[in-house]
Amino acid sequence: MAEFLVPPFERIALLGVGMIGGSVAAACRAAGLARHVVGYTPGHDAREALSLGLLDSAAASVGQAVAGADLIVLAAPISAQPALFSALVPHLHPDALLTDCASTKFSTVMAAQARLQGALDRYVPAHPIAGSERNGPSAARADLFRGALAILCPQPCNSAQTVARVRGFWAGLGARVVELDADRHDRVFAEVSHWPHAVVFALCAAIANGDCADDALCFAGAGLRDTSRIGASSPQLWADILLDNRAPVLACAQAFEVEMAAMLAALRAGDRAALTACFETGSRWRRALDSDGS
Amino acid sequence: MAEFLVPPFERIALLGVGMIGGSVAAACRAAGLARHVVGYTPGHDAREALSLGLLDSAAASVGQAVAGADLIVLAAPISAQPALFSALVPHLHPDALLTDCASTKFSTVMAAQARLQGALDRYVPAHPIAGSERNGPSAARADLFRGALAILCPQPCNSAQTVARVRGFWAGLGARVVELDADRHDRVFAEVSHWPHAVVFALCAAIANGDCADDALCFAGAGLRDTSRIGASSPQLWADILLDNRAPVLACAQAFEVEMAAMLAALRAGDRAALTACFETGSRWRRALDSDGS
Repeated sequence: MAEFLVPPFERIALLGVGMIGGSVAAACRAAGLARHVVGYTPGHDAREALSLGLLDSAAASVGQAVAGADLIVLAAPISAQPALFSALVPHLHPDALLTDCASTKFSTVMAAQARLQGALDRYVPAHPIAGSERNGPSAARADLFRGALAILCPQPCNSAQTVARVRGFWAGLGARVVELDADRHDRVFAEVSHWPHAVVFALCAAIANGDCADDALCFAGAGLRDTSRIGASSPQLWADILLDNRAPVLACAQAFEVEMAAMLAALRAGDRAALTACFETGSRWRRALDSDGS
Repeated sequence: MAEFLVPPFERIALLGVGMIGGSVAAACRAAGLARHVVGYTPGHDAREALSLGLLDSAAASVGQAVAGADLIVLAAPISAQPALFSALVPHLHPDALLTDCASTKFSTVMAAQARLQGALDRYVPAHPIAGSERNGPSAARADLFRGALAILCPQPCNSAQTVARVRGFWAGLGARVVELDADRHDRVFAEVSHWPHAVVFALCAAIANGDCADDALCFAGAGLRDTSRIGASSPQLWADILLDNRAPVLACAQAFEVEMAAMLAALRAGDRAALTACFETGSRWRRALDSDGS
């Protein structure tokens, strides 16, 4: 990876050093984005991340992590983010920039508006589209963001210069940076990520609670393994995300139920043409996704 | 692959030479299971399969394919199978064995009982668990069955010797052969394959019909790509399968709706503990699938 002669940042503080935060840290170090990368997580992750070589140092508190940092990256679960905003404000350097990794943006922006005070205009909300069903710093990878999308949802109060520096940060990790309005972001990600997780959890739960659960473990083929892969994700993390983005997710649920009802009516009626037409709508969209080439 | 000094079969006839039938043919030739592999499909597939090197010859009719064959493998869509049974009976060698590849077994056995007459006891129903969302002979692969499961659903009328020979055939293609009662087979595969396809088609259809369909193409990550991959499958083929296995699939639909209702109630109520518990049930099963090691 590229290494800068003069790193763009002096000290980058990661608040949250699990799979995502640990990968940000490792990518920062690999790309030479900062002279020093410090991490903090309530719990043991920061020490584990340090021992895994993801960090230059592990901080014992939010204040210790944030002091002297010119970029703070929040990478904690969504529900922890409001308290982190409150905890970091007193320690923030007047020029420090902030960004985050949360999967929903509207509630995060609301929390920031209520807590960041004079630093609000230096917070550029972000959502890197990377990760897996794995958790914790041991799943972190320095190349996690290489070629991945990072979505910025700039606030109206952000200066162009602030947005440009945060954009440069995410691009420096190897991500393709795009901008999206926070509301639109949350609706699109309800569709492509949050609701699909709910559907897959329900699909797996129905198998688990049925009388074929053990046979299903034996006979699941590559199709079900792929379909259900995200079902191995953290239930706590995804309960957080879905509750946080409840209204867009419930809109997806309603649209899904409409399609499901049409499909089941065709199946019950033995109406091959109607059932094929239902499947064709989904199949056409999925084939378009393939022909996207990515 | 192993080549037999004396091939176990003289002439194997494939009825249906798409992705599955073409792969059976290619695997038979690679493993030296027959002196001659002939294929037939209404349409152009057999000629295409011949030109792709999957077959020794392409037959112009069922009769031409079946004449002189000591093993007939049906690999046509389920809905075509009853007519194929009727068409092949008059041409069948008195010692010829039959097997098939259909994804449902109860209706296939019913169709055989109604049509195969004196040859019924030489038909050993099978379902190789292999394939992909791709179709046609160009997607065929000689190694498709290597390490895959092939499920045999022997009929009470099959002799042990008949079952052993058909078992040897599937094992000769590299498959791990297991036996399962036809009813149980259909219930298990409704759970692990047929119903998941329906859910994924509905999930994709809801995205396709929503106002984020185009953004969803841009922002779909690895999770949704994997989850929805089977949604690119053939709508006709899957309408066939689901209609054929309707009762077990509708039982899955009912179990799914129970889980979905519990999940949505928790989400609407903002009940984090209940929502997490719903997700945990599915997640636990999915992690068990991973720890299966396959």
